[in-house]
Amino acid sequence: MKRNVNLTMLKASYLFPEINLRKQQFLAKHPEVTLISLGIGDTTEPIPQSITHSLIEASTGLGTPGGYSGYGSEQGMKTLRERIASKIYSNLVKPEEVFVSDGAKCDLGRLQMLFGNTISIAVQDPAYPVYIEGSLIQGVREIISMPCLPENQFFPDLEAVPRTDLIYFCSPNNPTGAVATRFQLEQLVRFAAANHSIIIFDSAYANYIQDPSLPKSIFEIEGAKRVAIEIGSFSKLAGFTGIRLGWSAIPEELKYDDGTSVKADWNRLTSTVFNGASNIAQIGGCAALDEKGLQEIAFLTQFYLENARILKETMENLEYEVFGGVNAPYLWIRFKGQKSWDIFQQFLDQFHIVTIPGSGFGPMGEEFIRVTAFGHRENILQAAARLKNCNTGTHIDG
Amino acid sequence: MKRNVNLTMLKASYLFPEINLRKQQFLAKHPEVTLISLGIGDTTEPIPQSITHSLIEASTGLGTPGGYSGYGSEQGMKTLRERIASKIYSNLVKPEEVFVSDGAKCDLGRLQMLFGNTISIAVQDPAYPVYIEGSLIQGVREIISMPCLPENQFFPDLEAVPRTDLIYFCSPNNPTGAVATRFQLEQLVRFAAANHSIIIFDSAYANYIQDPSLPKSIFEIEGAKRVAIEIGSFSKLAGFTGIRLGWSAIPEELKYDDGTSVKADWNRLTSTVFNGASNIAQIGGCAALDEKGLQEIAFLTQFYLENARILKETMENLEYEVFGGVNAPYLWIRFKGQKSWDIFQQFLDQFHIVTIPGSGFGPMGEEFIRVTAFGHRENILQAAARLKNCNTGTHIDG
Repeated sequence: MKRNVNLTMLKASYLFPEINLRKQQFLAKHPEVTLISLGIGDTTEPIPQSITHSLIEASTGLGTPGGYSGYGSEQGMKTLRERIASKIYSNLVKPEEVFVSDGAKCDLGRLQMLFGNTISIAVQDPAYPVYIEGSLIQGVREIISMPCLPENQFFPDLEAVPRTDLIYFCSPNNPTGAVATRFQLEQLVRFAAANHSIIIFDSAYANYIQDPSLPKSIFEIEGAKRVAIEIGSFSKLAGFTGIRLGWSAIPEELKYDDGTSVKADWNRLTSTVFNGASNIAQIGGCAALDEKGLQEIAFLTQFYLENARILKETMENLEYEVFGGVNAPYLWIRFKGQKSWDIFQQFLDQFHIVTIPGSGFGPMGEEFIRVTAFGHRENILQAAARLKNCNTGTHIDG
Repeated sequence: MKRNVNLTMLKASYLFPEINLRKQQFLAKHPEVTLISLGIGDTTEPIPQSITHSLIEASTGLGTPGGYSGYGSEQGMKTLRERIASKIYSNLVKPEEVFVSDGAKCDLGRLQMLFGNTISIAVQDPAYPVYIEGSLIQGVREIISMPCLPENQFFPDLEAVPRTDLIYFCSPNNPTGAVATRFQLEQLVRFAAANHSIIIFDSAYANYIQDPSLPKSIFEIEGAKRVAIEIGSFSKLAGFTGIRLGWSAIPEELKYDDGTSVKADWNRLTSTVFNGASNIAQIGGCAALDEKGLQEIAFLTQFYLENARILKETMENLEYEVFGGVNAPYLWIRFKGQKSWDIFQQFLDQFHIVTIPGSGFGPMGEEFIRVTAFGHRENILQAAARLKNCNTGTHIDG
C-alpha cells in the first residue's frame, strides 16, 4: 500500500538525536566530565508521600476481590473529574466538562483527530512542537505562525494574524516561560470570538503561576467558554510525567458553526479511540487534589520555582538576557546575533551544561536556548556554580 | 469553525446506552431481581499476587529519590519489549519491533492516524466496532465488509473480497469466538501479499488459545512479517483492563510500496502524539511475563476458559446453536430467524441475564447474541442455573 503522504510532511525528529550526538562527542573527548542536563523538561523529585500512598493503596486493591476494577469510564473517574473542576478550576467548569486523559501530548493528538484536516491553525513561534507536528500528521496544511519575542512581550500581534479555525496558545509558555496577562487573554478571547475560532489553551504549567493577578486558566476570562478548550496535565503539577495523567476541559457552551456541540463530538471520539487513563494513575490524581495532596504539590511547585529563581539570578548577575523563570519552570535566554546550536555548543563546552537550542521550537527561537528548572537542587546549584566560575574566565559571547 | 464532517459519519453510539435503558426499564418493573451481566467483556478477577506485588513496588519506588522516574521512552521499557518478544512471540519478532501502548483500542486509533484517509479497508462482519468507527473518524470511506458466519466457518470468502489497503482481522474473534486455523491464516497472508495489503491482526485474546495446532500470532505464518501488524493487549491476558497496557508489533520487513518502512513512520507518529504507557503499568507487565507471572496469568486464563466451558455446555444441553467458547472467552449464540435485540430482550426477561445483541457488531450479527465468559464463578454458575431452570418452563424460541 501507499505511504500516507501526511507522514512525509514531518521532518525527521533531529532535535534530541542531535543533542545526544553532541553530548556523546563531547564525552568521548572529555570522559572525566559530568554533564548537567538542563535540557528536557522532566520532573526529578519523588512523588509526595500521601500521593505515593494512594498509588500503593490502589495497586494493593487491584489484587483483592473487593478492590479490583476493570474498564473505567473513558471520560475518567467521577471523583477525579469533580476534584479537577473544583480544585483546579474553582468550579469555573463542571465535572462533566472535564475529560481525564493519559497526558496532554496524547490528548493533543486526539484533538487534532477531532478537528480533522480541512482546517487552518495558528501557532505561537516558538512553541511545543506537537501542535504543528500532530497537525501535519492529520493532513493540516494551513499553518499560520504567530511570532512571540521579547519585542512583543511574547504575545502575538493579533492584528497581524489572519483568521484561522484553531489557535494554539500555551501559558505559562513552553519554551519561553512567558505568562499571558489577563488583558492579553481578554484580547485573545475577543479575537477568537470575532473570528469564530477555537482556542486550544495549553495550561500544563499553570501551577507555576504564583502572581494572583495572572490567570491560571483561560476560563477565568469572560466569554472563554464559548471559544476555548483547555488542556491540563498532572505531569508538572504532581510529577506524573511517567505515571501519565492529564485532562481536557471542553465547555458545553463551545459549539461549531452549525450549533452542534464540540463536547459531544469529543465524547464520541474519546469513547471510540481511547479507553481511559490507568485506574492507578487516576487514584493518584484524586489524592494529589485532596487537602494533603494539594499541600504536597504546592511544595513541589515551590521547589522547582526556587530552582528557576537560582538559575535566573545567576544568569542575570552574569548579564545574560533572561526571560521566563518566574511563574514558570523554563528560562529562555537570548544571545543576540548568535545561532541557537552555537549557544548550545558553548554551554556544553564551557559549562558542561546541556540545554535545548531555541530553534528546536521554531524559527523565532534562533537566538535563544531553553533551560529547565526541573532538576535535583544539587545539580541546579552546581550548574549555577559552573556558570559563575567559568564566566570569570572565558566569557560567553552576548 | 465548521464541524469535522468525518464525525458526522458516526452513528450515535446507541448500543450500550440502549442496553442500559432496557436494563433500567426491566429493573423498574422488577426491582427484586438481581441481573447477571454477561454483556461487556470486562475482566472480574483480582490481579494475581506477584503482579500486584510489582505494582506496589513500582508505586512505592516512585515516592523515593532512587525509585522515581519521569518520562520513559515512547516505545516502552526495554525489559518489557524484550519480554513481549521472547515470552509472547518466542522471538518471532525483535524487541525493537514491539511498541508498548496504553491498550489495543488506543493503538488502533493511532494506527488509523498512521494510514490516513485515502485508503480502503476490509473488515470482518461482525467485528469490534472500533475498526470501522475509528476509520470513519479519520475520513476513510471505502469500507469492504467480509461476512463471517457459521456457513463459512467464520472465515471470509477471500475470492469474493476485493483488494483493499488494510485488512482488519481478529483471532480469537470478538465477538464470534472463532479462532482462525493455520491454513486459514496462510490463505489470509497470501491474499494480503498478492494484493499489497497490510493486515492489522488483533490478537487481544491469543492467550485463550489452548489447542497447539492453532496459531497464537500471525507471525507464526510464513511471510507474515512482510504484510502484517499485530496488536496485543494485557487486558484479557493479565486483567489489565483498568490498568491499561498493550502493544503493537510492527516488523522491520513491513514496507510501503515506495520501499519505506512502516515501522519508521509508526515510531515517528507515536513519538509525536503518544508519551508511553504508565510506568507502573509497564512494571506490572514485566512481572506478568516473568516465570511466576506467566504461571499466574495462565491460571487466570484457565479460570475464564472454565467459565466459557460451563456456559457452553449448559447452552448446548439446551440445544442452543452455540459457537466460540473454546480457545476464546466469548460465546456467539444463534437464534435463526430472530432479531438480536429480541433475543437480548428474551434473555433479560426470562433469565435475567444481560448479553450483547449481535447486531451491535455488524449486520451479520443479526441472529446472534454475544455472551462473555468474563465473570465471577458464582455468577457464571447462577447464570447457568437460570438458563437450565427457566428453560424447563418457558422455552426460548429457536
